[in-house]
Amino acid sequence: MGYSELNAPMRTIMTPGPVEVDPRVLRAMGTPILGQFDPAFTTIMNEVMEMLRLVFQTKNKWAFPIDGTSRSGNEAILCSIIEPGDKVLVPIFGRFGHLLVEICERYGAEVHTMECPWGEVFEPRDVIEEIKKVSPKITAIVHGETSTGCMQPLKEIGMACRELGVLLVVDAVASIGGTDVKVDEWCIDGLIGGTQKCLSVPSGMAPITYNERIEEIIQSRKKVERGIATDEDNQKVSLRPITSNYFDLSMLQDYWGPRRLNHHTEATSMIYALREGLRLVLEEGLETRFARHELHEAALVEGIKAMGLTLFGDGKNKLPCVTCIEIPKGIDGEAVRAMLLNEFSIEIASSFGPLHGKIWRIGTMGFSCRKENILFVLASLEAVLLRQGFQVNRGEALQAALDVYVGKTEIVVASRGTL
Amino acid sequence: MGYSELNAPMRTIMTPGPVEVDPRVLRAMGTPILGQFDPAFTTIMNEVMEMLRLVFQTKNKWAFPIDGTSRSGNEAILCSIIEPGDKVLVPIFGRFGHLLVEICERYGAEVHTMECPWGEVFEPRDVIEEIKKVSPKITAIVHGETSTGCMQPLKEIGMACRELGVLLVVDAVASIGGTDVKVDEWCIDGLIGGTQKCLSVPSGMAPITYNERIEEIIQSRKKVERGIATDEDNQKVSLRPITSNYFDLSMLQDYWGPRRLNHHTEATSMIYALREGLRLVLEEGLETRFARHELHEAALVEGIKAMGLTLFGDGKNKLPCVTCIEIPKGIDGEAVRAMLLNEFSIEIASSFGPLHGKIWRIGTMGFSCRKENILFVLASLEAVLLRQGFQVNRGEALQAALDVYVGKTEIVVASRGTL
Repeated sequence: MGYSELNAPMRTIMTPGPVEVDPRVLRAMGTPILGQFDPAFTTIMNEVMEMLRLVFQTKNKWAFPIDGTSRSGNEAILCSIIEPGDKVLVPIFGRFGHLLVEICERYGAEVHTMECPWGEVFEPRDVIEEIKKVSPKITAIVHGETSTGCMQPLKEIGMACRELGVLLVVDAVASIGGTDVKVDEWCIDGLIGGTQKCLSVPSGMAPITYNERIEEIIQSRKKVERGIATDEDNQKVSLRPITSNYFDLSMLQDYWGPRRLNHHTEATSMIYALREGLRLVLEEGLETRFARHELHEAALVEGIKAMGLTLFGDGKNKLPCVTCIEIPKGIDGEAVRAMLLNEFSIEIASSFGPLHGKIWRIGTMGFSCRKENILFVLASLEAVLLRQGFQVNRGEALQAALDVYVGKTEIVVASRGTL
Repeated sequence: MGYSELNAPMRTIMTPGPVEVDPRVLRAMGTPILGQFDPAFTTIMNEVMEMLRLVFQTKNKWAFPIDGTSRSGNEAILCSIIEPGDKVLVPIFGRFGHLLVEICERYGAEVHTMECPWGEVFEPRDVIEEIKKVSPKITAIVHGETSTGCMQPLKEIGMACRELGVLLVVDAVASIGGTDVKVDEWCIDGLIGGTQKCLSVPSGMAPITYNERIEEIIQSRKKVERGIATDEDNQKVSLRPITSNYFDLSMLQDYWGPRRLNHHTEATSMIYALREGLRLVLEEGLETRFARHELHEAALVEGIKAMGLTLFGDGKNKLPCVTCIEIPKGIDGEAVRAMLLNEFSIEIASSFGPLHGKIWRIGTMGFSCRKENILFVLASLEAVLLRQGFQVNRGEALQAALDVYVGKTEIVVASRGTL
């Protein structure tokens, strides 16, 4: 009874997600509801599939969202292909590698891991060697690790997996829409994207894609649900069904495919948001969008360095949409974040595990990745650090960033040409 | 590229969901994004929990949404408490009973079922007798079966379960917000609600609640995720962890509770919608809201009967928000639905399994449950049936409905007083 109308403060969100959303996408969610089998709605579902294929750079038949947050996409693909005892290799270079292990173990996989220090990525040849040694059914790996700001080159690993008959499943939640992710060219069999990061759609959906090598496994475990299965369906029931009902991709295919067999009730307003978000990505163009992310990343990085702060990691395989900064000695990282939020209404992130309390992470993702945001976060961070007693080079950060924007400073794109 | 702005037709949605959404709820989704750990956002999360307790009529500590469509709530509760070999009794009186069986079986339960014909519900004493015979760990049952328009009385069953030490899990997806669901008074241990039905919030969230009897099981299977677990957490790892990571309620508790341990990224815009939807439910008041559903149900039912159509089922345990109508002999039910959609932009539903092709279902749920919608669907159905060659009593339906609205016809509320 005593509850007032929703009244959220305005924030400048410079974290690795969830990030700000284009007003056109927010507005799309206000579109009135359509029934899930209304032809007007199934047309929208089909358009979302088409647009996802373009964003994933794939010709895969299957590209659709799971109705859940990003990790629901990881679980949907992994639980649909893992059977107890299956060998999975997970190279871990940050928190979300551990999440892949967690999911695979829960579904009974025999998980083999390899680790490198947080802040680095793997030499592809080391991963390939391990694949040859372990001979797994699946290699599952993160593309962009938001926890460390690093990005793993995948093409060589993908080609080796294809040659060796190993499935490659990739978590591209943080990178999709912000930097190149070439599903077909890199020989990726199953891939999970995120909405609330570089696609700049609210959290709550996990777009996935997978090819016929994964579809074959799914089909062999196919089940049609009790209560709607025909006699013919029941004669073909698999003896190795997928454990989860909600994440059973054999059922989701029948819902997204021409049979349109009822499973869940598709999340209407979120599909509207996803469609509009994808439309804006394609309207901007993938190459232009990736270049925009690199431009603002460069301005941020130059500003951070000019201020006198140190970047975390060697920068060689930096994720363009996440910039990690070492918290200077004697400075309370959480006090800085709190002051940014409370005085400037800006949010930046801390990190997890071994990096907790050691680095800040600034995201430059999707709609949050704009010139005024970069300039505001640099100006604010400078002011807050001065208040907290850290002697920055006053006034240098904005000058360095502006130099990037006027083309005075050349943008050097780390090693991303070698992907 | 070639994609135009989202442009959905306006529909009058008279199905059992997804239904129309109040413009105030649609508007709430346009609120700018907040970070998931922003105090402004965690305040909203806490308010959602408070409001859910009021709607669920419970004092349970745990009441929060799963970020997925309704069935994700069923799976979250069931997979968090079922261990392989556990006995579960599922009394089935429609399609969604089969869904409960499906989920329980997938997680390794030994499922016992009892069935009654679609269109009827169980005598509570028959269910109680079966519970005594089977002695299950869990009884899982649907409250409002949208597939048949029937509602199962639960209070006696709940009291018996409590006495016998059996857990009662209830799927109230279709009934919550439209008719009384008294979690505590009916001794329900775990309950799943839906958003896109009588709460009139878009599909994509599944609000659940559970008490300390269920929490105890969850705590005994508790796990903190790899990559964020402390040494202390790791010393306490359960040997019987929950299979799903996404639906692991022990982790979701740590995310929704004071520890605020990162799990998924809460679906920002959907939480805005849920908060606003719940606020409108509480502003209207539960009793007033239930009475509104009964008023419009009565007008619809009187109109349907006056037209010369026959209701499906004995009406004794009718779900107030779903009215099932027998498709007259010689009439093509799908042709009628198509003409309603294409000429009148009205959607009504068919049904599943044994009722497919035999009945239409008209929903009167939440924001769709309005006088003008009832009058429009009656007028349109009359016109369409005449066009399809069925001789209705011309003009009678609207007169009968109007008689209800002016109080000339008394509203008889089936047997719902005996719940």
